[in-house]
Amino acid sequence: MPTVTIESIHNVRVKQTLRLRDAGVRRQTGRFLIDGEREIALACRHGFEVETIFVLADLSGQATNQSGLRDPYPAEFGRRVQPVSHAVLTKLSYGQRGAAPVAVAVSPKRTLSRFVWRAGELLLVLDRTEKPGNLGACLRTASACGVSAVILTDPVCEPYNPNAIRASRGTIFSLNMLTTTRDELQNCCRAQRIPLFAARVDAQDELWQQDFSSGGAVVFGSEAHGLSDEWDRAEHHSFRIPMQGASDSLNLSISAAVTLYEAVRQRRKV
Amino acid sequence: MPTVTIESIHNVRVKQTLRLRDAGVRRQTGRFLIDGEREIALACRHGFEVETIFVLADLSGQATNQSGLRDPYPAEFGRRVQPVSHAVLTKLSYGQRGAAPVAVAVSPKRTLSRFVWRAGELLLVLDRTEKPGNLGACLRTASACGVSAVILTDPVCEPYNPNAIRASRGTIFSLNMLTTTRDELQNCCRAQRIPLFAARVDAQDELWQQDFSSGGAVVFGSEAHGLSDEWDRAEHHSFRIPMQGASDSLNLSISAAVTLYEAVRQRRKV
Repeated sequence: MPTVTIESIHNVRVKQTLRLRDAGVRRQTGRFLIDGEREIALACRHGFEVETIFVLADLSGQATNQSGLRDPYPAEFGRRVQPVSHAVLTKLSYGQRGAAPVAVAVSPKRTLSRFVWRAGELLLVLDRTEKPGNLGACLRTASACGVSAVILTDPVCEPYNPNAIRASRGTIFSLNMLTTTRDELQNCCRAQRIPLFAARVDAQDELWQQDFSSGGAVVFGSEAHGLSDEWDRAEHHSFRIPMQGASDSLNLSISAAVTLYEAVRQRRKV
Repeated sequence: MPTVTIESIHNVRVKQTLRLRDAGVRRQTGRFLIDGEREIALACRHGFEVETIFVLADLSGQATNQSGLRDPYPAEFGRRVQPVSHAVLTKLSYGQRGAAPVAVAVSPKRTLSRFVWRAGELLLVLDRTEKPGNLGACLRTASACGVSAVILTDPVCEPYNPNAIRASRGTIFSLNMLTTTRDELQNCCRAQRIPLFAARVDAQDELWQQDFSSGGAVVFGSEAHGLSDEWDRAEHHSFRIPMQGASDSLNLSISAAVTLYEAVRQRRKV
């Protein structure tokens, strides 16, 4: 089936797609944008519902329009490819990505409802995270540490924000990322007897006194406010990362990385 | 001594100061800008040569011009305070800082020439770092880990870039930050018998096999290229941070944090 190149930035589909740069429209429509070939390929490979992939039309132009698209794109892109002119792609692109493809995808609704923890697994819980860049950086590290699932409780930032996708280096598509509320996560941990480790600057115990060898959920609060008192319960293991000198805080993605790698270290030795 | 408020954005000093938003001008003049009261106070406290501090003139206006500046600013600001109108401060400010003060400071020339390592001290070496935000994030963690000095070898980014200052949360002013070349740093380590730990993705040994208990210099390469082969010598301890899954790299500031905190962990136990 031949696919006609979209040449005009006034095309209706182009205009609809452009509106997805707005977070409110993404929420309303349940769609988000993916920038970059590598990122789109990862989303396709991991079962995301990718509806359209806008790519730069073949330079010769006619070949695309007359004989159908030749296939310079990853196999995962399949038949969803929509060739567009350079002007259109530049308009659709985020930041300075140049002629990188842009895709429209469906935001998955992944909740905790069917989540089953297998003993030993490590989970990263991010509570009320505010900055997409921090979320993405945490995901990139979580992937490197072999975390089984990343659970967002009451996230302030939108999980599939372009900055989160970019900072995650595409790992956002390969990780099992779930969204839920604090209450549901705490109930789930109680019901499934998942050890819960809460990072708190006022905790008595230090990171290194924790025992991560049996896995569990490590929880980090928001950049501005940390974890609320609802995370300070008798059954939770609270810990702090020691700081010297005038330092009174660490970046969220740094705290998560230091903790996850301590867990990796302990679990290697087991 | 009364100080007259600068009201116009066309004032010569305002124009000269604005030019310092340009990296080339900062290099030429040996000056840089500090945004924010907390950051400026830290620079003053740690002996930086702060020449002028532009602050919002007293709201009543006249008081400042007639009877000299009342003193709502930290004592460290001293007599260098220059009141300006809201229009001028907005023009001078970086990003969305609003009415936060802006200072002009002299870039310190701190080299390795008189550096003496005391056995046991931990040093962070950043080779050819490219992104100011990464540099600042590394500094923030280095401060929390009690690192004695941060040494920049052949830095690509400018150390006192506004983004580096911001990401460091002002720790850039309290840390001993030195700039040198790779050769000089390696000679220094050899001469003073400073153990040198080089982070390389292709290293055989893992982070946790290293012994940081006697301190030493931990070296990280640039974001894009890592460490060159000149850092792969028999006398260096090369190590890698293990990664699982599809991950093939970690953010520079994450790698540095995981390594520095492993050193802190080991040294607490000694």
